[in-house]
This record gives sequence, C-alpha cells and structure tokens, in this order.
Amino acid sequence: MAEENVIYIGNKNVMSYVLAVVTQFNNGCEEVVLKARGRAISRAVDTAEVIRNKFMPGVQVKDIRIGTEELQGEQGEKISVSSIEIVLRMEK
Amino acid sequence: MAEENVIYIGNKNVMSYVLAVVTQFNNGCEEVVLKARGRAISRAVDTAEVIRNKFMPGVQVKDIRIGTEELQGEQGEKISVSSIEIVLRMEK
Repeated sequence: MAEENVIYIGNKNVMSYVLAVVTQFNNGCEEVVLKARGRAISRAVDTAEVIRNKFMPGVQVKDIRIGTEELQGEQGEKISVSSIEIVLRMEK
Repeated sequence: MAEENVIYIGNKNVMSYVLAVVTQFNNGCEEVVLKARGRAISRAVDTAEVIRNKFMPGVQVKDIRIGTEELQGEQGEKISVSSIEIVLRMEK
C-alpha cells in the first residue's frame, strides 16, 4: 500500500480528519489507513465511524490492528504507547 | 458467550482492568471481551496491550470491532458515541 494513503490522527478535531479521508477516497484511493497513538486512538475510531455512518456508507472497516510503540522520553527513557491502525476500504 | 466474560472499561487506571482480565482468564475463561466508549477506548487498547506484552503472552487479540452507540443526553437529546470491543483469547 502506498504511504500517501495513511492519515495520522492527532489533536485536531474529528472533522479535519474526516475531510482528509473523504478527499483521499475521492482522489481514487481504494484504501485509507488511519493511524493513531495514545489518547488520539478514540479520535481515530470517531473518524472511522463518522465516515461510515454519515459521509460514505460504501466505506467499510476492513481491518483493525492494535500494537505498542516505544518512544523516547525527554530524559532518554523509554515510553510505551498503545497504537491503532484502522484500514478503511471503499466497496465498489 | 456468557455475559460474565465482558469487562467494561471506564475511568479507573489501566492496571485495575488488567487485573480483572487476568482474574477472568485464571478462572478458566477462554475469551474475555473488553468494551469501552468514547475516551475510554484508548484505555481499552492499553489494557489489551499490557495483558499481551507483560502478563499473559499466550493471550491473543482475536477480533476488534468498532461501532456507534446512541445515548440520551440530559435534555433528552441524542448523543452518538464511538465504541470498541476487543476480544481476547487464551491460546492453548
């Protein structure tokens, strides 16, 4: 899958990400992957649900993966953060 | 699946839920389902990851489902909230 199909979910409001996903699908992408870490995980789920229920009923959740990423803290310590990847697919 | 295998993730700290999951598996459950809504969704993912990586390496994520639930607000208005269900399974 090409890297440009990935949308990283951060601290903006959900509709910013919804718009980004809709744009990707309208540009012809078949799949868009939402990636989020930590507290943004619930926003990634919100984004997927708003897309599916309100904007693009043809989009399905194809896969959901969870994991742990190790980040480096300010003092060089390791911090474990949960992550999620939600794969959205446009059904034809 | 019996209802007692479900653990609802709320506002407590992650380790409370980890302990609840470990207890269920030690009582002989093959599957435990974590359910969470809204901001607790990221805590449900944290719980699953801590279980898998630190306490019970034999536990696998069997399925992850996301959805939307409609709650009633204080003035009777409808509020949509995202939800997640993470199915954990003890591999033998």
